[in-house]
Amino acid sequence: MTAIITIGNEILLGKTLNTNLQYLATGLADLGLAVDYAVTVRDDRQQILEALDKCWQEHEIVITTGGLGPTDDDITKNTIADYFGKQMSFDPNVWAHVQTMFSRRDMPTPEINRNQALVPEGFRVLKNERGTAPGLMFELSGKCLFALPGVPLEMKYLFATHIKAILGKKYARKPVIQRNIHTFGISESLLAERLSEFQIPQEISLAWLPQTGRVDLRLYGTDAELIDQTLNEIMETIRDYVWGIDEDTPPEVLGRLLREKNLSLAIAESCTGGLVQTLVTDVSGSSEYFKGGVVSYSNEMKRDILGVNAGTLKTYGAVSEPTAREMSAGVKELAGADIGISITGIAGPLGGSEEKPVGTVFFGLSIGDEEQVFRQIFTGDRENVRHKAAEYAIIKLIKELLRKQD
Amino acid sequence: MTAIITIGNEILLGKTLNTNLQYLATGLADLGLAVDYAVTVRDDRQQILEALDKCWQEHEIVITTGGLGPTDDDITKNTIADYFGKQMSFDPNVWAHVQTMFSRRDMPTPEINRNQALVPEGFRVLKNERGTAPGLMFELSGKCLFALPGVPLEMKYLFATHIKAILGKKYARKPVIQRNIHTFGISESLLAERLSEFQIPQEISLAWLPQTGRVDLRLYGTDAELIDQTLNEIMETIRDYVWGIDEDTPPEVLGRLLREKNLSLAIAESCTGGLVQTLVTDVSGSSEYFKGGVVSYSNEMKRDILGVNAGTLKTYGAVSEPTAREMSAGVKELAGADIGISITGIAGPLGGSEEKPVGTVFFGLSIGDEEQVFRQIFTGDRENVRHKAAEYAIIKLIKELLRKQD
Repeated sequence: MTAIITIGNEILLGKTLNTNLQYLATGLADLGLAVDYAVTVRDDRQQILEALDKCWQEHEIVITTGGLGPTDDDITKNTIADYFGKQMSFDPNVWAHVQTMFSRRDMPTPEINRNQALVPEGFRVLKNERGTAPGLMFELSGKCLFALPGVPLEMKYLFATHIKAILGKKYARKPVIQRNIHTFGISESLLAERLSEFQIPQEISLAWLPQTGRVDLRLYGTDAELIDQTLNEIMETIRDYVWGIDEDTPPEVLGRLLREKNLSLAIAESCTGGLVQTLVTDVSGSSEYFKGGVVSYSNEMKRDILGVNAGTLKTYGAVSEPTAREMSAGVKELAGADIGISITGIAGPLGGSEEKPVGTVFFGLSIGDEEQVFRQIFTGDRENVRHKAAEYAIIKLIKELLRKQD
Repeated sequence: MTAIITIGNEILLGKTLNTNLQYLATGLADLGLAVDYAVTVRDDRQQILEALDKCWQEHEIVITTGGLGPTDDDITKNTIADYFGKQMSFDPNVWAHVQTMFSRRDMPTPEINRNQALVPEGFRVLKNERGTAPGLMFELSGKCLFALPGVPLEMKYLFATHIKAILGKKYARKPVIQRNIHTFGISESLLAERLSEFQIPQEISLAWLPQTGRVDLRLYGTDAELIDQTLNEIMETIRDYVWGIDEDTPPEVLGRLLREKNLSLAIAESCTGGLVQTLVTDVSGSSEYFKGGVVSYSNEMKRDILGVNAGTLKTYGAVSEPTAREMSAGVKELAGADIGISITGIAGPLGGSEEKPVGTVFFGLSIGDEEQVFRQIFTGDRENVRHKAAEYAIIKLIKELLRKQD
């Protein structure tokens, strides 16, 4: 049915991971369209022509990515035009768009970009609001070809904005529906034990997706009603471990709960260096419940700004239960928020000790007058520890807010 | 020279990212062997035969990954044997190894695994200490084929342990060397104009790699000296736009400069919500120069903690030059640092106005007694705007520190 041609030396040199293929394959699968064949070739005319010929002969939909930029090594557009025997014609609308993109950045449009406005005759332009290279579409004898830029941001924009709708109309299939359950605080094998007596209808597939530090369950099939019903039954069986469903992310679920309860939040971070706040503010509208916070990387900042006792720091150290407790209370007070979270730990690779190995993290949680402290040890490198700790902090607060609801 | 055939439905369904290709391409490039062609096919006999035929006709080295397991959908081995007209023969050494692998896990060896000990006649076995499926090698008329399992851990083991040495001996080449130049503050096309009169030796390839908000240049070839010399000449031509080379990342370059100059840093963020601090603290050892900072999402925090004048906020608003200026001075003072950076803007999708559209960001930079403010407009969605703004803040400070050096 579908073939994907990825064009670019970078992938064959191992410098770039081909994430575009995964994105397109997933997006097409959602439309019920299977990718049967994928090929990666160099920015080389002969190779592109051969791949194009094979794919166009054998498949109904062909998507190319890469090689649409303005520089000399971008030869995809001309090669495709030649393959179909088309002349180039200048498209003033595309040229106007290219100029707009440059003027938005207060830059003059270089002459070289004129060739981005050249479109093979008979091709349709897919407007690219994320860059200067337009997407292109060509239809012939019930088949269609799409040429997309290789920059993932632009490729994704064009697929999501134009191609999904075009293909959805053209090749409607019974879509595969999938629904997710996000769990936390239970291992994959324990979760499997919990669900061992649960009968999953055979029309539905269940996939176990262990994430870092948590497990997702995915149900898929084509019977929406049956999937919804099964999802609800599973949720009922394991409800103590569920923090969200489907496309929920921890910051979104947290935001929804805080909004519902009309509570505000402040955050003090040490080892995560701002990551928890970055995640919380990824959500549009988060300023409604997030007041702000402090990244207290030095002891002085913990003491002078968050009001952690100098004696606490001296006696127990910056990475300790008492410091975490005072940090969360301190930032709540400082920001005038209803809830304060704090994170202090050792992200590594240096700084660990026998008593507090790398990966040790303390979390403080101040809700109103209640104060709680948690200790966790996370495995992995610096990046893993920071990510797991940041997500833990957010999901822990979600569970706490859900618990209070019951 | 080399072709890679990735076999597996999972990749074409978008469920798995093809990391094997990147690993192999990088490993082969290190040996001076270029990958010219890569194809992904389903676990389908006809597709595998076609890909094999094309690759074996046109390339000297062919590597397949995937489809060597014991279950029904693993058909790679039989298909390859058929292609070369070879019978299978039972290899007792492989069978002994399979049994050892199971007994190590205290498990009896399932009968189904007997077929893993079947080896096409004339093929060499590459022992797989990480799994039960052996790697296979076949040589004919100066060409060679390798069949590897798809599990990344096993594939990597076989490549590193066996194939590297075999290929290194057989096809010793000068390794491909690559060097990168990271630029900032200039578009791809303007950069191309700047370099239009620059003569790049024909032994060297130049690739343009647009990143979000900046452009990288990559030089590659086999003559290290010539590449270094060309790199230096290009750097000289566009030096005002260069912030780093090779594997440099903005936070690492910034860290190096701050350490060299013995300067400390504090950061106040609004629209980026902690992202700049997250990036800066991704670098291990950043506590040596990063004191910490504030995420001032509310006006009260800007006023009460960073000391931004209530009048400034009222007259000019939170997203304005004067606020950015006072935020950077304030956080520098608060943290007792040598340098303060501030970021305040509109990440979107809401909150834009005609005068200050979504993507408008003000940056404050206080170095000692010097204060500067910059205004930028970034395109893209909320995530893009935040990422571009965060990176801009870091690279801007790098350029400022480099400028002072001159």
